[in-house]
Amino acid sequence: MVQLVDHYPTRKLETPSFINRKDPTVYNFDINQNEIDLLQLESYDNNGYLFLDQFFNEEEVERFKSETKILLEQSRSAKNPEVILEPGGDEVRSVFAVHEKPGFFKDLTAHPRLQAVIRQMIGSDVYVHQSRINFKPGFTGKEFYWHSDFETWHAEDGMPNMRALSCSIALEDNTLYNGSLMVIPGSHRVFVSCVGRTPDNHYKESLRRQEYGVPDQESLTKLVNEGGIAMPVGKAGSVLLFDCNLMHGSSSNITPYPRSNAFFVFNSVENKLQSPFSADKERPTFIATR
Amino acid sequence: MVQLVDHYPTRKLETPSFINRKDPTVYNFDINQNEIDLLQLESYDNNGYLFLDQFFNEEEVERFKSETKILLEQSRSAKNPEVILEPGGDEVRSVFAVHEKPGFFKDLTAHPRLQAVIRQMIGSDVYVHQSRINFKPGFTGKEFYWHSDFETWHAEDGMPNMRALSCSIALEDNTLYNGSLMVIPGSHRVFVSCVGRTPDNHYKESLRRQEYGVPDQESLTKLVNEGGIAMPVGKAGSVLLFDCNLMHGSSSNITPYPRSNAFFVFNSVENKLQSPFSADKERPTFIATR
Repeated sequence: MVQLVDHYPTRKLETPSFINRKDPTVYNFDINQNEIDLLQLESYDNNGYLFLDQFFNEEEVERFKSETKILLEQSRSAKNPEVILEPGGDEVRSVFAVHEKPGFFKDLTAHPRLQAVIRQMIGSDVYVHQSRINFKPGFTGKEFYWHSDFETWHAEDGMPNMRALSCSIALEDNTLYNGSLMVIPGSHRVFVSCVGRTPDNHYKESLRRQEYGVPDQESLTKLVNEGGIAMPVGKAGSVLLFDCNLMHGSSSNITPYPRSNAFFVFNSVENKLQSPFSADKERPTFIATR
Repeated sequence: MVQLVDHYPTRKLETPSFINRKDPTVYNFDINQNEIDLLQLESYDNNGYLFLDQFFNEEEVERFKSETKILLEQSRSAKNPEVILEPGGDEVRSVFAVHEKPGFFKDLTAHPRLQAVIRQMIGSDVYVHQSRINFKPGFTGKEFYWHSDFETWHAEDGMPNMRALSCSIALEDNTLYNGSLMVIPGSHRVFVSCVGRTPDNHYKESLRRQEYGVPDQESLTKLVNEGGIAMPVGKAGSVLLFDCNLMHGSSSNITPYPRSNAFFVFNSVENKLQSPFSADKERPTFIATR
């Protein structure tokens, strides 16, 4: 594959640095759907995320829960690479590539109301770059350190530009206490170039524990001093949309409440993957659709 | 020492169980000080904790911070058993027995306004059973799982009755995101008897990671279903008082904000330690004053 110019070099230099974003966050400001208005779109542009409380109704949420339960049961005994376990345990942490098997979750990625919002932001047709169901079990859910998803998708998957977003659908009520996602508002406007080379088959470890592509403490402190920290929480059925370069992470979950969510990444059809920018090998397609 | 009747057996049975509390929470309802009123006292009695926002003023807080900094500097190089490190790292997690050395923190345990509130609740003179400064560093602060302090003090230190309380003074602003203490309101009214025998020299590990005296998930779920979870947070200088048997814990801290606090345990002079109820040996006096 042709290697494009690398606008966001990472894992190549000795010291971390900030690189200004070269791409828009919102690609189309002409409102072309009825789900979100211009104010919401501008808020997404500014903060790098948008929280839509109770986007899905109670009936839909009931269906989410029963389908998640079925998936968890099936995954417990499965030995597929798509099933990721918690570090140091055998609880299921995530199930990947749920958009590839015909069924409920594949249909959910194509949900017309959801698609309308996403195409508004991305300004083109989109496809699913990655999908997974995350089970953050009660009592034992582990923290996930700060990161920009784009850093990984760029370095390890060859995503050239910032024209993708993540969509997290809450399958349970999220509270302030059960390890919900924390975001640094505005952090999507700069790219934190990380240090350290990507080791071979990094993905096998990185889905459980991160060591490379980790932003440095000084850069994180600057971002937090500027933007603060927000934790968008709400009822099951709420949707969090966030830009591919928004810095986010989560604390551990010692509460009895699990925090499951469906996590879909939509990429523009005009932003197709190239060769990885900072890794020797492509990651498997269950992690990065090609 | 004479072994008293064990009203709260733990680490002795094969299955966990609830034991009703046999002691009062508030020992004196006749208001004898000007710091808290009857409503606050009743709230403490009901919920098992009381949060006093900005109990100490800004000037005092500045002093707290400078004294904490000095202590941290001194402790980094110290190899005393009083200095506890983070699991898997060499960051200082806690410094124990700060009430034993003449100086700022010893004086703080005897602060007249603080003492007045505590004697109101305990209904007698008190002494410091344990003291420590906790440094929950930014980025790397680890979670601390749910526990009742009394369970440990009873099992390993021989504290006979529930007539003690903890006082946590915030040395930095506590937020919802930096691993602040979570409590289960009302959980102080039952004792969760835990399973598993106490191993020798358990304290060396348990200050860094708990394995014994850990409440079971079913009991915790019942307590949370009944009382919910609260996270009393406020500015530096706020004080959280909580009953010795209140179930509490904290999540990890990946934010840049450290969460230091001074932690003092006051026990009634009428509740002096006996032989441990569920351990072969007493813990060292820097952990449990005798």
